[in-house]
Amino acid sequence: MTAQHVGTTSPPGTTTQGWALHPDRALPAEPSSRDAARAVYAATRDLPIVSMHGHVDAGVLAADEPFGNPAEVFVVPDHYLVRMLVSQGVPHDSLGVPRRDGKPVETDPREIWRTFCTNWKLFRGTPTRYWMEHVLVEIFGVSAPPSAQTADTLYDEVQAQLSTDAFRPLALADRFNLEIVATTDPATATLADHADLAGRGWGERIVPTFRPDALLHVDRPEWRDDIALLAERSGIDVGSYADYVRALEQRRAAFIAAGARATDHGHLLADTTPLTPAEAGRIFDAALRGEVSAADAQAFSGHMLHEMARMSAEDGLVMQIHPGVLRNHDSHVFAERGPDVGYDIPVAAEYTRSLRPLLESFGHHPGLRLIVFTVDETVFARELAPMAGVYPAMKLGAPWWFLDTPDGMRRYREAVTDSAGFYNTTGFVDDTRAFFSIPARHDLARRIDAGYLGRLVAEHRLTVDEAVETAVDLAYELPKLAYPKPAPRT
Amino acid sequence: MTAQHVGTTSPPGTTTQGWALHPDRALPAEPSSRDAARAVYAATRDLPIVSMHGHVDAGVLAADEPFGNPAEVFVVPDHYLVRMLVSQGVPHDSLGVPRRDGKPVETDPREIWRTFCTNWKLFRGTPTRYWMEHVLVEIFGVSAPPSAQTADTLYDEVQAQLSTDAFRPLALADRFNLEIVATTDPATATLADHADLAGRGWGERIVPTFRPDALLHVDRPEWRDDIALLAERSGIDVGSYADYVRALEQRRAAFIAAGARATDHGHLLADTTPLTPAEAGRIFDAALRGEVSAADAQAFSGHMLHEMARMSAEDGLVMQIHPGVLRNHDSHVFAERGPDVGYDIPVAAEYTRSLRPLLESFGHHPGLRLIVFTVDETVFARELAPMAGVYPAMKLGAPWWFLDTPDGMRRYREAVTDSAGFYNTTGFVDDTRAFFSIPARHDLARRIDAGYLGRLVAEHRLTVDEAVETAVDLAYELPKLAYPKPAPRT
Amino acid sequence: MTAQHVGTTSPPGTTTQGWALHPDRALPAEPSSRDAARAVYAATRDLPIVSMHGHVDAGVLAADEPFGNPAEVFVVPDHYLVRMLVSQGVPHDSLGVPRRDGKPVETDPREIWRTFCTNWKLFRGTPTRYWMEHVLVEIFGVSAPPSAQTADTLYDEVQAQLSTDAFRPLALADRFNLEIVATTDPATATLADHADLAGRGWGERIVPTFRPDALLHVDRPEWRDDIALLAERSGIDVGSYADYVRALEQRRAAFIAAGARATDHGHLLADTTPLTPAEAGRIFDAALRGEVSAADAQAFSGHMLHEMARMSAEDGLVMQIHPGVLRNHDSHVFAERGPDVGYDIPVAAEYTRSLRPLLESFGHHPGLRLIVFTVDETVFARELAPMAGVYPAMKLGAPWWFLDTPDGMRRYREAVTDSAGFYNTTGFVDDTRAFFSIPARHDLARRIDAGYLGRLVAEHRLTVDEAVETAVDLAYELPKLAYPKPAPRT
Repeated sequence: MTAQHVGTTSPPGTTTQGWALHPDRALPAEPSSRDAARAVYAATRDLPIVSMHGHVDAGVLAADEPFGNPAEVFVVPDHYLVRMLVSQGVPHDSLGVPRRDGKPVETDPREIWRTFCTNWKLFRGTPTRYWMEHVLVEIFGVSAPPSAQTADTLYDEVQAQLSTDAFRPLALADRFNLEIVATTDPATATLADHADLAGRGWGERIVPTFRPDALLHVDRPEWRDDIALLAERSGIDVGSYADYVRALEQRRAAFIAAGARATDHGHLLADTTPLTPAEAGRIFDAALRGEVSAADAQAFSGHMLHEMARMSAEDGLVMQIHPGVLRNHDSHVFAERGPDVGYDIPVAAEYTRSLRPLLESFGHHPGLRLIVFTVDETVFARELAPMAGVYPAMKLGAPWWFLDTPDGMRRYREAVTDSAGFYNTTGFVDDTRAFFSIPARHDLARRIDAGYLGRLVAEHRLTVDEAVETAVDLAYELPKLAYPKPAPRT
Repeated sequence: MTAQHVGTTSPPGTTTQGWALHPDRALPAEPSSRDAARAVYAATRDLPIVSMHGHVDAGVLAADEPFGNPAEVFVVPDHYLVRMLVSQGVPHDSLGVPRRDGKPVETDPREIWRTFCTNWKLFRGTPTRYWMEHVLVEIFGVSAPPSAQTADTLYDEVQAQLSTDAFRPLALADRFNLEIVATTDPATATLADHADLAGRGWGERIVPTFRPDALLHVDRPEWRDDIALLAERSGIDVGSYADYVRALEQRRAAFIAAGARATDHGHLLADTTPLTPAEAGRIFDAALRGEVSAADAQAFSGHMLHEMARMSAEDGLVMQIHPGVLRNHDSHVFAERGPDVGYDIPVAAEYTRSLRPLLESFGHHPGLRLIVFTVDETVFARELAPMAGVYPAMKLGAPWWFLDTPDGMRRYREAVTDSAGFYNTTGFVDDTRAFFSIPARHDLARRIDAGYLGRLVAEHRLTVDEAVETAVDLAYELPKLAYPKPAPRT
Repeated sequence: MTAQHVGTTSPPGTTTQGWALHPDRALPAEPSSRDAARAVYAATRDLPIVSMHGHVDAGVLAADEPFGNPAEVFVVPDHYLVRMLVSQGVPHDSLGVPRRDGKPVETDPREIWRTFCTNWKLFRGTPTRYWMEHVLVEIFGVSAPPSAQTADTLYDEVQAQLSTDAFRPLALADRFNLEIVATTDPATATLADHADLAGRGWGERIVPTFRPDALLHVDRPEWRDDIALLAERSGIDVGSYADYVRALEQRRAAFIAAGARATDHGHLLADTTPLTPAEAGRIFDAALRGEVSAADAQAFSGHMLHEMARMSAEDGLVMQIHPGVLRNHDSHVFAERGPDVGYDIPVAAEYTRSLRPLLESFGHHPGLRLIVFTVDETVFARELAPMAGVYPAMKLGAPWWFLDTPDGMRRYREAVTDSAGFYNTTGFVDDTRAFFSIPARHDLARRIDAGYLGRLVAEHRLTVDEAVETAVDLAYELPKLAYPKPAPRT
């Protein structure tokens, strides 16, 4: 084995002075699979990016200001990265993660960046390592891998570019070849940023996503405030369950007018059992009085998923659900820092019985497109692929969150293709808050799908031509098909 | 990579004008594993087929008429194939799947066949693709893969052969090298077809299987009709639980006399908790009055699994159970088309606690052979292999239904061999309604086991000689050992 | 493929007359992964062994007598081996497994050994095969694989060496390069053997582990006897819950004084929900009266895990928990032979909700080190890695028991590295009662980790240098870091 062939160093013949990534990275090691995978990947590498489930802030895109310093761009807000450092004893404070009580945390971005670089070793084998390498090398072209020794140099190299106009959000959207990117927006959002972007010609490329979670979980302490906000935004006085449904329908219409393609639903359970209108009304009224039980709130949220499917079948918004995460596992950390600092933990999920009511009602409805995600990979082969493999309304989303990794994506294809094939999946859908990681994630998905398809070719289960066509579909055509412009039916 | 080495095209040196499959298909791509796998597969490729868990209709075999047209043989009755087309928006009607209300569905077999061929792309990576390739090339020798362009030609090529005497069922049984094939028959079957076949010398090669599900689920709407039929068949007036048990014993004896080797039990749960006779009698009586609760019916079905094990220990019929499938997931489709049209969906299954009562009672009984199947592959390593790895009465069935695939069978060996070894499995057991797919399924299983064993050889964990011997056992000897002729003990 | 490259025979160029193992065994077959894996394994092969979770009897080590005959060393006490033979119809009696009623069992060790050797074929593909090959070849240098033909020769070859001083326990500890080995000891142990060993200079190398299970499960029939013993050992009259807690603390202190590094907790569930002191006291009092309910006993055991974490945070003993095994699945076998004869079967486990109370209380406590094991591998990616990937107090133990196998260890790394990286795992921790298998288990773990790291190198996801450093950490540095000497905090 020669040095050129190992690790993430440069390939033979590359004469760059700096740090380069191997062109075959994340492709299968086995030679005949790799040969086929290279041919497949060559056909998808440069396709435009369709990013329909991101969590980039629309305000950042609309403002189009420079992104700030390396710490605030790459460390502080990245819960994958923060959680790994915390797990090894680095306090949130020293990573600059803000406290709710306003007490001081580390503010020197160079110090925070140093902490990250010094601990680079911890990320070996993780997707953070993979994505960050891509960002640092392919986007910033830095001179060396992160380490205690290189931290300051890298900081300067990255900062110098972040300050340029070429690194403003919309310029990067072009450079990243983002054909379309969806943001995630609360149902009560004004959508002013999207209106602003549309006014500047970005309306077809940057679209909102309707996320009504806050309104559907009626035992949230802030729920009544959110209902007041819903009334304000919708112009509908929300005094009853019927008002509430109408106001939600109004907001969906406003989102569609603003270019939205989809809704997005994060529930603990996948339950979709409908209630009678009377029962739904009873729970809603109790919630308005602040007297709802946890069991009733749970039942109501399941009912509302069924109701959201009904609305999607009518107005054409694609419905995305991703259940099974217990949020804010440590209540002390939540009290101190708020959500999204790394303490969301998956639980075992059930879909066969849970989705049955929804699928019985709308699983064959021509207007519904239901995309299901999971962080419990045991359900891919057992429950989700068999259901997506028969109900025309249902498609399987990409492996999500903790599973959006080289081995996770490979296992996903191995688990779902038997029963769902390729064409009952959405192709790749990223789920990132980190704008700079979008190209890295899509590139990695294309490599892993190329590797999976390459293995099928090497095992004489597909021809190369079929593999190439399938890969292009997974990388580009299927995501576009899965998230079409709404075509209302009523 | 040259064209000869990729996909499902012909190997180098093959000069056929038509469509040929690569001789190494479904073997591992890795060169040293493939070398060993080839040696292993060469030893099993031509062994006779032992097919002990099929669902081919005994009447079809007894009638021995030509099979009909390509659509009614390969499309309409194949729920794997139908469900994939339905999932992509092809209506059941246009596939000719009959309606219960007798309303018209597509009846032109050529049109149905065209729909299938036109959608061939959907099956990429699925077992249907793999089996159908085998059938079309190895059995029918057609000239090209299915497509919109080739559909009519393939139809004619297949139809021409289906009409010949060489393609009648019993002639094919010889051509397929079927040493023995078991059908599945309700406990109330007359077994007239088997008597007919036995009279023509096929009694040792085509045997029935005792499937009493309809009688054991006492809350089925048709249960009392089935009890009446049980009384008629057994000649025992079934007015009490004791009568019912005697009548079941009578039917088992009749099946044994007709050549049966095994029973077959499809329950939602694997529960085997026995009831007292008094409690069983109470539930039975309530069921006879049409007043049984769902919970009592569930308890009774678990009790009857325990009772069936007791009978198997006495009369020597091998006991097969395969729980964990929620049948007829969409009640509207069920009302419209009936069962077995693609809407059976797995659920998470539990076996450790569920099988405990049965195994405590009979797990060391020299008369019991219990074969357990699952569609929840998470239990292979966790529950089933550890139990099969200690209880002498229990063996692990082959990966079933949604798991009867190239990657599913590979994962099965990887999951169960650690704790159960090879010799606590039954070897390959197909589970097909599609007579023509029997050779394809056995051939694929032999290839996958060859690949698994080939990897162990390449990793220096087995010698080639051991791998060859093991493969022969898995393909032929173990299924024969697992399903012996009953040798009653009482 | 030439004979030299296959199976477990000698590599090319080896001229030994006897039986030799291939130097690349259990490394990946794929050539570039194997090349990298060889380089990695070369760096770990000869590192000292840190064995912190073994079940070797301290008395055996202290006595330092010859081990006895091959049957009593390698067959009778090995539940992996016994269960496989039992599963294929070999009675416990003929393996010499003692009966509680004192009735005779096979006593001829040569006959027992023959039974094992004759059935060698059953172990193909299992870890027992792998470990036993290592023991027979690398430790005893026997002349041939086990078989009916070689059984007597092997018996003599092994027996001859077992009788020598070089094969006494402490001599072997040196030969095996055991830097430190932990035994497992009931909380009521006198620790006399450890005192004896310490007096002879082995105190730093052979340490006890505090296992209080018997005292924490208050519905055990013998519980009150164990409480009496606790009182005797601790010198504290245990008449109340407060006494009980104090007595447990006393015992932990005694274990620390005797060199203990860790506690060990085997519970059916991972529940860690604390009770109020009043509630705990109420249950404890009921248990003392022999009137505790099963539900209360379960709640108490969960409470005590929380309490044990509190004590660990204070006294610095590492806390190990390994739930999810239903012990003594067959009550008849248990009545006849007692525990640990192969009838412990895993059940599905839940950790996210179960560990939450403990982690909320102590997950960020600088004094706690919690190491979690499982036999349900579905929780690795879904629950354990995400929790270990954020809570600084929690580390993931090695794949345990049924999962301590070549493929199990590979799947473990593939499942946990994404979210936990390498550095939130403990590195390899064996869990063996079989003293002779310690080197085999560590060697296999090093090979599997080398293979996993080798694949990452071959896929250009790590450099070789990183892989080598990581492998050394996993094999040696991380186990030492995970089980430090207690440094009390209060």
